[in-house]
Amino acid sequence: MRVIQFGLGPIGNKLTKFLLERNNIEIVGAVDCDPAKIGKDIGELAGLGRKTGVVVRASMQEVLREKSADIVVLTTSSQLVKIMDQIKEIIESGMDLVSTCEELSYPWLTHPEISREIDRLAKEKGVTVLATGINPGFVMDFLPAAMTGVCRDVEKIVVERIQDAQFRRVPFQKKIGAGLTVEQFNQRVAEGSLRHVGLTESMQMIASKIGWEIEKKEEVIQPILARQTFTTKDLYIEAGNVLGVEQIGRCYVKGEEKITLIFRAALGLPDPVDRVMIKGDPDVELAIKGGIYGDTATCAMVLNAIPVILASSPGLKTMVDCMPVSFFT
Amino acid sequence: MRVIQFGLGPIGNKLTKFLLERNNIEIVGAVDCDPAKIGKDIGELAGLGRKTGVVVRASMQEVLREKSADIVVLTTSSQLVKIMDQIKEIIESGMDLVSTCEELSYPWLTHPEISREIDRLAKEKGVTVLATGINPGFVMDFLPAAMTGVCRDVEKIVVERIQDAQFRRVPFQKKIGAGLTVEQFNQRVAEGSLRHVGLTESMQMIASKIGWEIEKKEEVIQPILARQTFTTKDLYIEAGNVLGVEQIGRCYVKGEEKITLIFRAALGLPDPVDRVMIKGDPDVELAIKGGIYGDTATCAMVLNAIPVILASSPGLKTMVDCMPVSFFT
Repeated sequence: MRVIQFGLGPIGNKLTKFLLERNNIEIVGAVDCDPAKIGKDIGELAGLGRKTGVVVRASMQEVLREKSADIVVLTTSSQLVKIMDQIKEIIESGMDLVSTCEELSYPWLTHPEISREIDRLAKEKGVTVLATGINPGFVMDFLPAAMTGVCRDVEKIVVERIQDAQFRRVPFQKKIGAGLTVEQFNQRVAEGSLRHVGLTESMQMIASKIGWEIEKKEEVIQPILARQTFTTKDLYIEAGNVLGVEQIGRCYVKGEEKITLIFRAALGLPDPVDRVMIKGDPDVELAIKGGIYGDTATCAMVLNAIPVILASSPGLKTMVDCMPVSFFT
Repeated sequence: MRVIQFGLGPIGNKLTKFLLERNNIEIVGAVDCDPAKIGKDIGELAGLGRKTGVVVRASMQEVLREKSADIVVLTTSSQLVKIMDQIKEIIESGMDLVSTCEELSYPWLTHPEISREIDRLAKEKGVTVLATGINPGFVMDFLPAAMTGVCRDVEKIVVERIQDAQFRRVPFQKKIGAGLTVEQFNQRVAEGSLRHVGLTESMQMIASKIGWEIEKKEEVIQPILARQTFTTKDLYIEAGNVLGVEQIGRCYVKGEEKITLIFRAALGLPDPVDRVMIKGDPDVELAIKGGIYGDTATCAMVLNAIPVILASSPGLKTMVDCMPVSFFT
């Protein structure tokens, strides 16, 4: 399987590292528009301490002049509108596409026109497009949707993802607002720069799979505050300041709250877990001890999705209308 | 979705009950060869206390003379060779097929010729064939396979299904050997009449999905014995006699034990649970509290698989190469 890595930020670099570990995958090219990265070897960028012979190019055309590939791994942005040109270029080059773009994980309701355009183009060119990751893509959508398969009836689905961010990377800690004052937190939320992207997409993915028509949905974000001073090796947080974020999505069908997604990530949160609770016949309560470690798992999921995408029929797919993704050798 | 129910034993009758609950499904016919059932209304057989207008016929041809259907639900046997004629007849009539036949859940290695024949016939006729249920079909195969999708590497997979049979149906309690002496238990095992069918298929399904070539597999069955007298409302079990069964499957790849499936079902077993443990990067430990209640869930899974099968490309499928099955409305 010949792969082009498009986007060499933290996720892209981790992905190249994981891709290079697999015998049945070859990275044939890499693309990033950052002048500081162009010309660098992806092995250096991934911190492998060795060269791989694959050098970052400024554009897809430059790569395609020398090489061809089966699939492009696109890790450039969370926002779909920002990467539409990149998506189109990849599809038009006749390559499959897997992305970490959260908004692309289930874009049918939030970006219906763009979704139809991607789907139409992909079918025209005979290629498959899928965005995945751990969240959105797995814990709060694929997994609960798949668990309802055991149910004769489903009244309500609640998913919790509770993460202790204490030992995560500092950029992740900053992303969830750790160390901010409440005022700064609220300002960042108002700007739209502090939120987990994907709750909406996860709810819509579950609802569409089950056949529930969403009549109303809401999402609330609030800070989780330090009751007393909290210190990590990198951060000092005063009592009353922010340890992290709680974000809750709710989705109503015929007047009833049918899907509730609860995402909490903060320094020192007790009992981290991923939990799926289905009220139905039978009830299902599933817990993943400690929660799935997102940094590794997002990249693993994208990589493991490659053979599934290559085997899929053309079009814009979501995780609930592809074969299940597994580790592969 | 127009359905024919083929086989009206306990599972078939429960399935007709569940099928009748769904607005978007119509049962157009029912088949069973038991003279005691032929001519009976499926509503009566399912214990609904009302007639549905659908009467059991002695053969598929009789049903097809009057009606056509999209899919047949086949619940006649656990053994694939016993139902090959039924499978062929259904495929040749151009209908999709979903079955509870355990051996059909992953028949590619245990019955390679039959599998190829079913696959070829199904593709010729443009129909899809899938066997599913809770186990095999979900807890010990689909679910662990899907959970490996979050892993950069997988060293080993262990799945436990621990069931307290104390409050299950008496036929289930008898099926797992409850009340037998050790001698009777061993004789029933030797005859092949006491075993959970599906561990082999589950291991093979996981291994094939990951790309592990199984070099050796083993399965052991032993009784779980009463340390002291154990009584239920229906059974009296003396100390030293059998409370239930433990069945363990192991699967080796390149000299290493890679998959271990542990199935325990006995009266009074403490801490019933379904548990998936993956040793890898990251490790994954998932537990379903109390375990999934098999009686309801097997029928629900078969029913919920119908739209997935109708939307699938033709051929013989397994749960790991279809879209995930969800509850649907």
